[in-house]
Amino acid sequence: MYVPEPISKLIEGFMRLPGIGPKTAQRLAFHVLVMEEEDVLDLAKALARAKRDLRQCRICSNITDQDVCNVCADKNRDRSVICVVQDPRDVIAMERTKEYNGLYHVLNGAISPIEGIGPDELSIPQLLKRLEDETVAELILATNPNIEGEATAMYLQRLVKPVGLKVTRIAHGLPVGGDLEYADEVTLTKALEGRREL
Amino acid sequence: MYVPEPISKLIEGFMRLPGIGPKTAQRLAFHVLVMEEEDVLDLAKALARAKRDLRQCRICSNITDQDVCNVCADKNRDRSVICVVQDPRDVIAMERTKEYNGLYHVLNGAISPIEGIGPDELSIPQLLKRLEDETVAELILATNPNIEGEATAMYLQRLVKPVGLKVTRIAHGLPVGGDLEYADEVTLTKALEGRREL
Repeated sequence: MYVPEPISKLIEGFMRLPGIGPKTAQRLAFHVLVMEEEDVLDLAKALARAKRDLRQCRICSNITDQDVCNVCADKNRDRSVICVVQDPRDVIAMERTKEYNGLYHVLNGAISPIEGIGPDELSIPQLLKRLEDETVAELILATNPNIEGEATAMYLQRLVKPVGLKVTRIAHGLPVGGDLEYADEVTLTKALEGRREL
Repeated sequence: MYVPEPISKLIEGFMRLPGIGPKTAQRLAFHVLVMEEEDVLDLAKALARAKRDLRQCRICSNITDQDVCNVCADKNRDRSVICVVQDPRDVIAMERTKEYNGLYHVLNGAISPIEGIGPDELSIPQLLKRLEDETVAELILATNPNIEGEATAMYLQRLVKPVGLKVTRIAHGLPVGGDLEYADEVTLTKALEGRREL
């Protein structure tokens, strides 16, 4: 089967992206040929630039194109609260709520003995260093509500609690717009446990 | 919401690709950050190169990085048969069968009055020019089995038939592995019409 090399290279390139198989890669590659040249070059440049310019924030390990990320650098953020998340994408999700005005700390993973990820593979030493600063009053643990995330939250809570810091965990319960009937037992139990007086 | 510019540019770039919405674009962009630098640069280069180096074959309008595509240039192909398809991807599909050894002609579309695509928007004039060559004995119409494809096949058949050329249409019928029960009436009618003695 003959496919011109520039196309087969492009198909190969797309196939390295997650969730993109041979069929989708072929569809994308042929679409590139009918796209505006400017748009294609923009994407090519963005790819090269993302890899070159992005690094971890020196303070919170979030992704940034500066030395210190915009959240850490923002003088208007509440420096007494640090929200611990697993991934830079979680920061984006939190920021989308527009309800949180504190700082973040990105672990870049979660504790997972099976995958051989311990506390030292994550940015936990950097977090402990930040907690030495007296201005920090509360640590919100916003790791994912799954086994690894819970284990990480538990580990951090035990590690930090003796320092006398307020440590909180984001609430578990039914998602808004969800259906009680279809909720699993664990979620429903957590929702019951976390009930609040109105 | 704050996302570093190199990331937001990359998300925008991915969103210009077909079937990629904001969520997928974000997932892809963040995946790029953990990919090998070499792989990312390969993809970036492939994008720029595909746009720069690919053009239409001077003879059959298929996509190629040369003046004449590899099929047209191949001395071992049967020059007496031309298979007319709508899209370069259809050539790839045909080549995958390894059953066809003739030439192709890529229309780069199908006649569609609604979208304002007439014969002159397609590579039909080039096809007619090729048919002037006496070596061509058969024209296989392999446009898609839908309204536009059928209309295009019909149009070509009427146009070419008077020349005295053998004009054939690929068979309609049940796909291999398909289920009679779930076949639509039109397909089943076509399958019946096209029955062959065993």
